[in-house]
Amino acid sequence: MSSPQRIASLSSAIAKLRVDYLLITHLPNIRYLCGFRGSAGALLVGGAGPVFFTDGRYLEQAHEEVLGARVLIGKKPPLPAAAEWLARKRGGKLGIEGDHLTVSSEARLRALVPKSWRLQPTSGVVERQRMIKDAGEAELLRQAVNLGSSLFRPMLKTIRPGALETAVAARLEYAARQAGAGGMAFDTIVAAGPRSALPHGRASVTPIPRHGFVVLDFGVILAGYCSDMTRTVAVGRPSANERAWYDGVLEAQLAGIAAVRPGVTAGEVDGASRKVLKRNKLGKYFTHSTGHGVGLEIHESPRLASGETTVLEPGMVLTIEPGVYIPGEGGVRIEDMVLVTKTGCEVLTPTTKELITIAQSE
Amino acid sequence: MSSPQRIASLSSAIAKLRVDYLLITHLPNIRYLCGFRGSAGALLVGGAGPVFFTDGRYLEQAHEEVLGARVLIGKKPPLPAAAEWLARKRGGKLGIEGDHLTVSSEARLRALVPKSWRLQPTSGVVERQRMIKDAGEAELLRQAVNLGSSLFRPMLKTIRPGALETAVAARLEYAARQAGAGGMAFDTIVAAGPRSALPHGRASVTPIPRHGFVVLDFGVILAGYCSDMTRTVAVGRPSANERAWYDGVLEAQLAGIAAVRPGVTAGEVDGASRKVLKRNKLGKYFTHSTGHGVGLEIHESPRLASGETTVLEPGMVLTIEPGVYIPGEGGVRIEDMVLVTKTGCEVLTPTTKELITIAQSE
Repeated sequence: MSSPQRIASLSSAIAKLRVDYLLITHLPNIRYLCGFRGSAGALLVGGAGPVFFTDGRYLEQAHEEVLGARVLIGKKPPLPAAAEWLARKRGGKLGIEGDHLTVSSEARLRALVPKSWRLQPTSGVVERQRMIKDAGEAELLRQAVNLGSSLFRPMLKTIRPGALETAVAARLEYAARQAGAGGMAFDTIVAAGPRSALPHGRASVTPIPRHGFVVLDFGVILAGYCSDMTRTVAVGRPSANERAWYDGVLEAQLAGIAAVRPGVTAGEVDGASRKVLKRNKLGKYFTHSTGHGVGLEIHESPRLASGETTVLEPGMVLTIEPGVYIPGEGGVRIEDMVLVTKTGCEVLTPTTKELITIAQSE
Repeated sequence: MSSPQRIASLSSAIAKLRVDYLLITHLPNIRYLCGFRGSAGALLVGGAGPVFFTDGRYLEQAHEEVLGARVLIGKKPPLPAAAEWLARKRGGKLGIEGDHLTVSSEARLRALVPKSWRLQPTSGVVERQRMIKDAGEAELLRQAVNLGSSLFRPMLKTIRPGALETAVAARLEYAARQAGAGGMAFDTIVAAGPRSALPHGRASVTPIPRHGFVVLDFGVILAGYCSDMTRTVAVGRPSANERAWYDGVLEAQLAGIAAVRPGVTAGEVDGASRKVLKRNKLGKYFTHSTGHGVGLEIHESPRLASGETTVLEPGMVLTIEPGVYIPGEGGVRIEDMVLVTKTGCEVLTPTTKELITIAQSE
């Protein structure tokens, strides 16, 4: 879908909100709608729009990147520039992105636009549209996932007892960059031994122990789109307990994937994974939600969590990533990205989920 | 300065604001005040505080990291947890961080606390304190700057005609990680040839041409603190025009540094650099401000921009980074970090600013 089409879709959403304009200030939303990749901009959709405001630093870049909106380069920052532009219009209701605009920016904006404009906070308008990836986005996500997955096998060669978690992460990130990634989608997690019990165990200067799990959770950014995958490998032969944790998580992950299809709620997918872990007496160790949407941002709607009522639709791209974390002992998480199809889902992540064992010797 | 001392300093600022509590939600402010490095937290300073709220995922980490505040682990996210805690108090004025709290979060908070609490947006309270680095912070910044600078010479070896900008960035970032950096402070800029005219030319999959400038702007994060430096090198022998741009920017950068001392305003430092470029007929190509504060965040107060009235004080750490950008042709930026001293400033960045020329052959 082209930028003009995305903006046209948004326009009908805006009409339903009964606002005259929606002022978009969240950069990933701006990028999605009009292609701008810089760090200062505001996009006004509605009425006499779409108009994109940025400053002199982005003169060339804006004209190169922005499609489907008129580009206005201001002497002022984007927000005051947009306010000035609105001051020349008749007035009405101005929707703002309440989940992103700060209290201070809202107050500034309110002071800058004439009293004939009323500000109305909105929530998740562009994000709801972004939940459903179009064909072009699905393809970009597929490419990002493939790049991410291609790094997994080479990374295994860097994992051995005594190697620092940060060294494993550094090699991975270098390989990602060399393969063309724009950067990492989030801080790489390499969490070994007892640290594998930390759901957010960013790579630290801890050596990998001679025994235990290593949780590897990483993603790349390619052409703006994020990948996200987790695999857990074992150094040395896993104990019977460890094997049971791994098998329980894998079973829960497969059950989550099996539950994904149009018409099901995000909460039901979470429930499907959680049920398996409960049945395996591991429920209390599963301390986070089952997954999330992925796209231009690493965490997008919907959240796959208990009670979430968003109904899945074809074109959503989700992570399915249950895990168990046994304090002081270790943890396991397995994560794929899936694309919701008309009848179910396609698993995008091609990497094996069989438990891989790393030798204890050099 | 220890966390309790920082919180004590903040308490007197809060008293002047005539609020009973200040609710701190901006993570770098939280880290600065109490040491917490996780991604979910709220710190309440004032009255019966300081109290730090986080959730179960950060149980271990919060108890390990937080100093100077009582740690409360909630079943709810930090904001509702803080609201619940406040509901048991008498009521009064609750300061919020207007520059960071979103319109949606403010509305949620307003709905959660009893009517006896009035919310009052504040601006830059912790940031003003953070502008002045204490001795410990200055030392950490010095170490970050030194690590960053140590990467420059090795990076030059990767710059040659035909090499991709992304390959140069990838080597740099790998070297940074190997040298102990926690990550990069911002997306590395490698902008070669005509792309050097883009003030924010993040490394792209463009090969470095056989002639022209390459702008290299990068920073590392070490122990949480950011470095930031820019050097511009020439591939092949620069033309007379290019030489003039370089010399003009260097002269402007030195004039900016010379203007830094306590009592001078941020706007005056910007003016000192800008004046030199205007005199050299390059004023219209200098399309951004002269610099910014640096610390736990890459962009902190004060901004060194026209009209900024913040008065410099010893302990501030600033970038001085004028540049010129000639559309379609090329650009030059030179950037150091400086520490404001009692009598002037100390340039922290040890790297040469002589124009370095890279050979055109392999």
